[in-house]
Amino acid sequence: MVLTNNIQLSPAGFDLATYLAHCQAQVEAALDQALPVVYPEKIYEAMRYSLLGGGKRLRPILCLTTCELVGGTVEMALPTACALEMIHTMSLIHDDLPAMDNDDLRRGKMTNHKVYGEDIAILAGDGLLAYAFEHIATQTRNCPPEALLEVVARLGRAVGAAGLVGGQVMDLDFEGQTNVSVETLHFIHTHKTGALLEACVVCGGIIGGATPLQVQYLTQYAQNIGLAFQIVDDILDLTATREVLGKTAGKDLQAQKITYPRLWGIEESRRQAQNLVDEAKEALMSFGERAKVLVAIADYITTRNY
Amino acid sequence: MVLTNNIQLSPAGFDLATYLAHCQAQVEAALDQALPVVYPEKIYEAMRYSLLGGGKRLRPILCLTTCELVGGTVEMALPTACALEMIHTMSLIHDDLPAMDNDDLRRGKMTNHKVYGEDIAILAGDGLLAYAFEHIATQTRNCPPEALLEVVARLGRAVGAAGLVGGQVMDLDFEGQTNVSVETLHFIHTHKTGALLEACVVCGGIIGGATPLQVQYLTQYAQNIGLAFQIVDDILDLTATREVLGKTAGKDLQAQKITYPRLWGIEESRRQAQNLVDEAKEALMSFGERAKVLVAIADYITTRNY
Repeated sequence: MVLTNNIQLSPAGFDLATYLAHCQAQVEAALDQALPVVYPEKIYEAMRYSLLGGGKRLRPILCLTTCELVGGTVEMALPTACALEMIHTMSLIHDDLPAMDNDDLRRGKMTNHKVYGEDIAILAGDGLLAYAFEHIATQTRNCPPEALLEVVARLGRAVGAAGLVGGQVMDLDFEGQTNVSVETLHFIHTHKTGALLEACVVCGGIIGGATPLQVQYLTQYAQNIGLAFQIVDDILDLTATREVLGKTAGKDLQAQKITYPRLWGIEESRRQAQNLVDEAKEALMSFGERAKVLVAIADYITTRNY
Repeated sequence: MVLTNNIQLSPAGFDLATYLAHCQAQVEAALDQALPVVYPEKIYEAMRYSLLGGGKRLRPILCLTTCELVGGTVEMALPTACALEMIHTMSLIHDDLPAMDNDDLRRGKMTNHKVYGEDIAILAGDGLLAYAFEHIATQTRNCPPEALLEVVARLGRAVGAAGLVGGQVMDLDFEGQTNVSVETLHFIHTHKTGALLEACVVCGGIIGGATPLQVQYLTQYAQNIGLAFQIVDDILDLTATREVLGKTAGKDLQAQKITYPRLWGIEESRRQAQNLVDEAKEALMSFGERAKVLVAIADYITTRNY
């Protein structure tokens, strides 16, 4: 079975919400299948609790979309898409721990350690991270092993000290400090959230057989929407309510975190986000009409309200 | 440069201590090189603090040894050997956390969270786990990509809920309970320590080009020495002193942990460990004289005193 999302939903008329809902259901089903509960049940239940706890699934969807964009199939990219969500979930579980951000609420539900205890939450994160790599290596079909190794390498880098972990360390370091430069804030976000988003976009491309030039364009696209995404997140933390966000709102303000709106003000932050989105779309020029999904996702980032 | 350990040290006469010291130095140098300190320094320093904090390096040495045994080179296996030590170190850092075993001392030094704080210790573990996979994928030379993907898959499985994490969950679950069956204790140890040891031995073989039958023999060897290793660890916890162990001794007794000596008594535990070592050596029969290092390592497990 060759799954394809683009063809089913085009060219008659493209509606991003329909496309995202379709992909989300696909990812949900694949995640559910990827992690069955076996003995010892408790750890699998803890992993599934956070993995299947909702969320927009934007990361795996980006991976599926770029794979199709360069000529691959959804099927080829699904294991990596699931792995990306596992890694993202791991980072959320560990970030929420009392020793880190100490958060009780995530995606509208109790955080993992509130339900299962800190010890299990730490292990559930470790388990998801390890399983992500296993899942890619054992479940991917019809993709050259060299390409998969490159995916493993890029994912590892995106999560480790050169990526997400490094960004989180700096974020913790500067918490409560008001004297933070734009450069430091950029470092935090390009690492804490940007690196994994970039891996989503680029790994989908690599699996689908992207040329080096295409990988370069996809990287530019990803870096721009990554930062735009974070700026909008910061704005939403200030302007949206807890009910809409599904997590504690105003948290950044409470924690005295430096954010883009605090450095630039809300209006300038919106302008910067828009510039980044425009640059992201420019990077897709050479793909033409086929890139319409990625273009629509870029636009969605600045217009979303949760 | 083709590194080789077996040839340098044989056939004139084989001394395990010399061999282990030689390999240990090789692993030490490779680990030091594998993880340079870059910005943000703190996280790399925390990772290096535990990674380069001593230890026997038995896991990476097993990987190098089996790779050579089946015809590969030390050079081919070194990145995976380092990755195995990174993963082992990650598990120690996370195990020592207050929410887990709450230990202050490890390998004769303060535990990671005692030096860097819990938040950094959690992230250092995550960083090491992610980097392990990146390191294998980017640094291994002269090994077919299919074999490396198999290594990634086996390592992921060995660390995740089907391995180390699953064993740790059960270990925490049964802490303080005195009514633990031998089957449960076996489950805990074959997962908590056995799975990674097996991965060390088997991944070295896979990188070196082992046949499926050779992988089977290596698996039998590894499973037997893995369990023997744990039984001896339990015995040493009861009989050795803190100075010799480099970690808190008598900890299992204090924590009311069920151990093999508590179920079987010390003498019967020693006998069982010896049986397992004998079976491990039997599994190596078909390798003949070339397996002398693995045979000596098996013997070393039951005779070591720290």
